[in-house]
Amino acid sequence: VKVPEEVVEVLLKKDRFVVLSHINPEGDALGSSIALAVALKQLGKDVEVFNKDGIPSIYRFLPEARIVKKFNELTCESDSVVIIVDCNNPERVGIKEDINCNLSLVIDHHETEDDFGDVRWIEPSSPATGVMIYHLLMSLNVRITEAIATNLYTAISIDTGSFRYSNTTAETLLIGADLIRQGANPAYIAERLFESWSKNRFMLLIETLNTLEIKRIQNKDASLTVAITTITTDMFKRTETDSSDTENFSNFPRMIEDVQISAMFRETEKNKWKASLRSKGDVNVARIASVFGGGGHRNAAGFFVEGNIEEIKKSFVEEISDILVKDGWRDKHL
Amino acid sequence: VKVPEEVVEVLLKKDRFVVLSHINPEGDALGSSIALAVALKQLGKDVEVFNKDGIPSIYRFLPEARIVKKFNELTCESDSVVIIVDCNNPERVGIKEDINCNLSLVIDHHETEDDFGDVRWIEPSSPATGVMIYHLLMSLNVRITEAIATNLYTAISIDTGSFRYSNTTAETLLIGADLIRQGANPAYIAERLFESWSKNRFMLLIETLNTLEIKRIQNKDASLTVAITTITTDMFKRTETDSSDTENFSNFPRMIEDVQISAMFRETEKNKWKASLRSKGDVNVARIASVFGGGGHRNAAGFFVEGNIEEIKKSFVEEISDILVKDGWRDKHL
Repeated sequence: VKVPEEVVEVLLKKDRFVVLSHINPEGDALGSSIALAVALKQLGKDVEVFNKDGIPSIYRFLPEARIVKKFNELTCESDSVVIIVDCNNPERVGIKEDINCNLSLVIDHHETEDDFGDVRWIEPSSPATGVMIYHLLMSLNVRITEAIATNLYTAISIDTGSFRYSNTTAETLLIGADLIRQGANPAYIAERLFESWSKNRFMLLIETLNTLEIKRIQNKDASLTVAITTITTDMFKRTETDSSDTENFSNFPRMIEDVQISAMFRETEKNKWKASLRSKGDVNVARIASVFGGGGHRNAAGFFVEGNIEEIKKSFVEEISDILVKDGWRDKHL
Repeated sequence: VKVPEEVVEVLLKKDRFVVLSHINPEGDALGSSIALAVALKQLGKDVEVFNKDGIPSIYRFLPEARIVKKFNELTCESDSVVIIVDCNNPERVGIKEDINCNLSLVIDHHETEDDFGDVRWIEPSSPATGVMIYHLLMSLNVRITEAIATNLYTAISIDTGSFRYSNTTAETLLIGADLIRQGANPAYIAERLFESWSKNRFMLLIETLNTLEIKRIQNKDASLTVAITTITTDMFKRTETDSSDTENFSNFPRMIEDVQISAMFRETEKNKWKASLRSKGDVNVARIASVFGGGGHRNAAGFFVEGNIEEIKKSFVEEISDILVKDGWRDKHL
């Protein structure tokens, strides 16, 4: 990762910054925002950090988490530099494209959806925005404090599944090692991120796993195994949970060796469903989602659909079967 | 970690080796055995690798896994050096203490239970035996091949929960980074280790989670939350699984924030039970296990018990309550 000089210059020369990230923020958005803000303060800058949804309770353990303020409508001073991290689309931040500011800067590792930003630094090959921020702070000669280290380690842990996803490289672990040396505590962070479920959320997981159906789809020289789970609004009511509690649920059936696609159907209101698709390896679920008017990436996609859930699941399986028959397995696993 | 010169000398000077590890072997035992054997072969040595239970199917992906042979009774040539890795007790290896050999060498990161071994290298502070083998191969100037890297990365991943447990240090990640550079593929290894469950095993997990009971134990200034799950022989029969499928099950209820102790009771035969205890942080389950004649470490312990399961669970909860009343919470969390 090479940090563009233009980005370093903006941060060194300007004095006033507003750091923003996407709605429904997770560890990379929040850890990157906070680490960058703490670093800019160390350089004597005036910094504010906002998120449309504020900071979810599971991330309140992050050092300096309190600097993240919630907003309804954001207005900036005309001498402020607006920095968007872990996102490159003002709509996903909840701001207007023509927001009043001195300059806008985008720092993100997602594919570009948009051309927003006077200065843009986009690295789709970076495993996390936190990795980019780490390199940026090195270029700025910022001292990595324990607070910065913990925020960046969290960002990297979330986006690599604690070094389990295919975006994990030797460099990711080297940066992790350096952050531990600067004060990040890997076991404490893992416990906060992966072992701090509410009891209700765990009960919802058990109810969800009880709905598991496994479908083997086969044509003459291809086959594919799909795991399907269903969450109804009744289940949310019974366990006193909501949709935010289902994050990561569709990864559980992926633990089964044969399962190449895990599909979770969640009822948003009566007979309206949100499908979340997760796949392993080179199975492309974005292609299936697109059949139903949705989208996403190869290994994580989704769509909205209305109707009777039994019929929806039936047509979902049929569509996958159709794609398999058309293209076969050897083609490119969908 | 400092590699004792005596260990390096034995490996360089002797010509014939038998590498052994404990029964019911996991990733650290197997990855360490295979990596060491491949390295010794690179040095032109004659090496055999044995395990009493052979290599479980989930570890057959390990490069060179086929060199691990199963044995019933092991006899060695009198010019052989016997190396025990990831264990320091001949009984747990399934061999006699007075096994015929030229010399015995123990390489382990567990607390010593025994004084077996002419040459003993024990490092309880090392997160995995794989870390010790890594340092040993460096001292031996062995080239870390892709096969060695994959075996050692697996050893370290298993024993640190892919860098999540409290034994994870900056050095652990540095070694991980080096192993990736030498050919270990972190995503592939994680998929083999954590996403390759049989369908039957997953069904047993769901049935087990359905038995979950959460007990809050309280005295006037202390409280503790315990999660209890139960697996009967009927459940094994229904799902066509056995006890080897329950590895790691007791970690699931630990995902709940409040839960400090997860206890899993598994029926071994009618009215006979094996309890596995897992705890978070400084809660000491070895102390509870000792009340029932069992033992273990602070965060992982177990015991055997006979009787009616409802009564067993009741007395288990009462014992924890007694300890709490006696010592209070502030004392040392049991």
